[in-house]
Amino acid sequence: MHQTFDAALEMNLLHANQHGAEENRDRLNKWGITCLNLMSSPGSGKTQLLEQTLQLLQSELRMAVIEGDMTTQLDADRLRQHEVPVIAINTGRACHLDSKMVAGGLHQFAHEQTPQDFDLMFVENVGNLVCPAEFEVGEHAKVALLSITEGEDKPLKYPIMFREADCLLITKTDLAPYLDVDIENIISNVRQLNSKVVVIPVSAKTGEGLESWCDWVKQFVSNQSGAAKNLVTAS
Amino acid sequence: MHQTFDAALEMNLLHANQHGAEENRDRLNKWGITCLNLMSSPGSGKTQLLEQTLQLLQSELRMAVIEGDMTTQLDADRLRQHEVPVIAINTGRACHLDSKMVAGGLHQFAHEQTPQDFDLMFVENVGNLVCPAEFEVGEHAKVALLSITEGEDKPLKYPIMFREADCLLITKTDLAPYLDVDIENIISNVRQLNSKVVVIPVSAKTGEGLESWCDWVKQFVSNQSGAAKNLVTAS
Repeated sequence: MHQTFDAALEMNLLHANQHGAEENRDRLNKWGITCLNLMSSPGSGKTQLLEQTLQLLQSELRMAVIEGDMTTQLDADRLRQHEVPVIAINTGRACHLDSKMVAGGLHQFAHEQTPQDFDLMFVENVGNLVCPAEFEVGEHAKVALLSITEGEDKPLKYPIMFREADCLLITKTDLAPYLDVDIENIISNVRQLNSKVVVIPVSAKTGEGLESWCDWVKQFVSNQSGAAKNLVTAS
Repeated sequence: MHQTFDAALEMNLLHANQHGAEENRDRLNKWGITCLNLMSSPGSGKTQLLEQTLQLLQSELRMAVIEGDMTTQLDADRLRQHEVPVIAINTGRACHLDSKMVAGGLHQFAHEQTPQDFDLMFVENVGNLVCPAEFEVGEHAKVALLSITEGEDKPLKYPIMFREADCLLITKTDLAPYLDVDIENIISNVRQLNSKVVVIPVSAKTGEGLESWCDWVKQFVSNQSGAAKNLVTAS
């Protein structure tokens, strides 16, 4: 969030975004799609995690991706190789996806696919540990990634992201032997801010933690889909 | 930069910031202080680089630091151990330093020290590869850091930072043997955007590149101080 403009304007901006996020979530609920918003610093491994997740869960869930990048189609092209629909959004100078951009992405998705055929939509946000945490896009849960190369103190220094996260993946654990970083200290720093977040250490290289992550995703989709059915029954 | 509000407002915001940055630079010029703005993703090694630089250059340059962090004094406390003045600015929810915050920092600095006694002011920005590049704070040069753990494609995906940088430090080169990353590819991607930027691979662990970096800093301060004297003579 930029701070140079006045507080009332900031509130309006966040309020308008929140309203759009709720509209997106309603739309996803009607389609029966669960949405996970993946957020982290640049280079923490969001795209690689997504590639592996699409592969591991392809026989169990019907998935799609909204891919946010400032410029280029590099990540979208990587993900398209996994034969899932990928909607690419270039944000230009914007440092995060907002609900309006994602509404455009959902519109395109509905135009190109039959949304009711899908279970799970991943949103890969712009690499930024600050702003994406403040701008909901309509997700049902926030997944933050933190590479162990970023250091133990990052949860304390960038608290908003770690307070907001429902699931935290501590990535690149295979590099632990070459770094002065203790994963337990990272977890303890996260716990100071958020006692409920599910923390899963993972390595794309060794495969550590990927099964736990996929189990979490499947359980979350299952719970979400049950909750959505109850909502429909109740109404 | 957030994009939800209108283009005219964005321009006003950047224009007001730029005006403040020029006032800060005038102030620094009058004091005879060169200012370097250090920017990168979270955890690329800005604070560690600063610690080593303060140590290596302490006998040659009189230095001070403006330390930007969303919350906490963790980095400021690390830097204070090197016996230089450190002005800590907590940005709260803001994702970058702006010229108004740095003006406040310079005011505090002038109140606590005799600015004319100093040669060099480092500004350590909030860890963010997007927004800091758009908000000048009054620096004479922009120094970007990119850790090799972030991957080869980052210059292409976050182009504003790499277009704006005067000097780019590619950090954590000691981890190269454990990663599928070629530093030459990073440099080639940077060169597509910026043919003039000085690129220096460094490792805080092995010390690689630190001498070249310190030489660049000394040369830049010397040139800047010569240019400032010429300005004074000409006026």
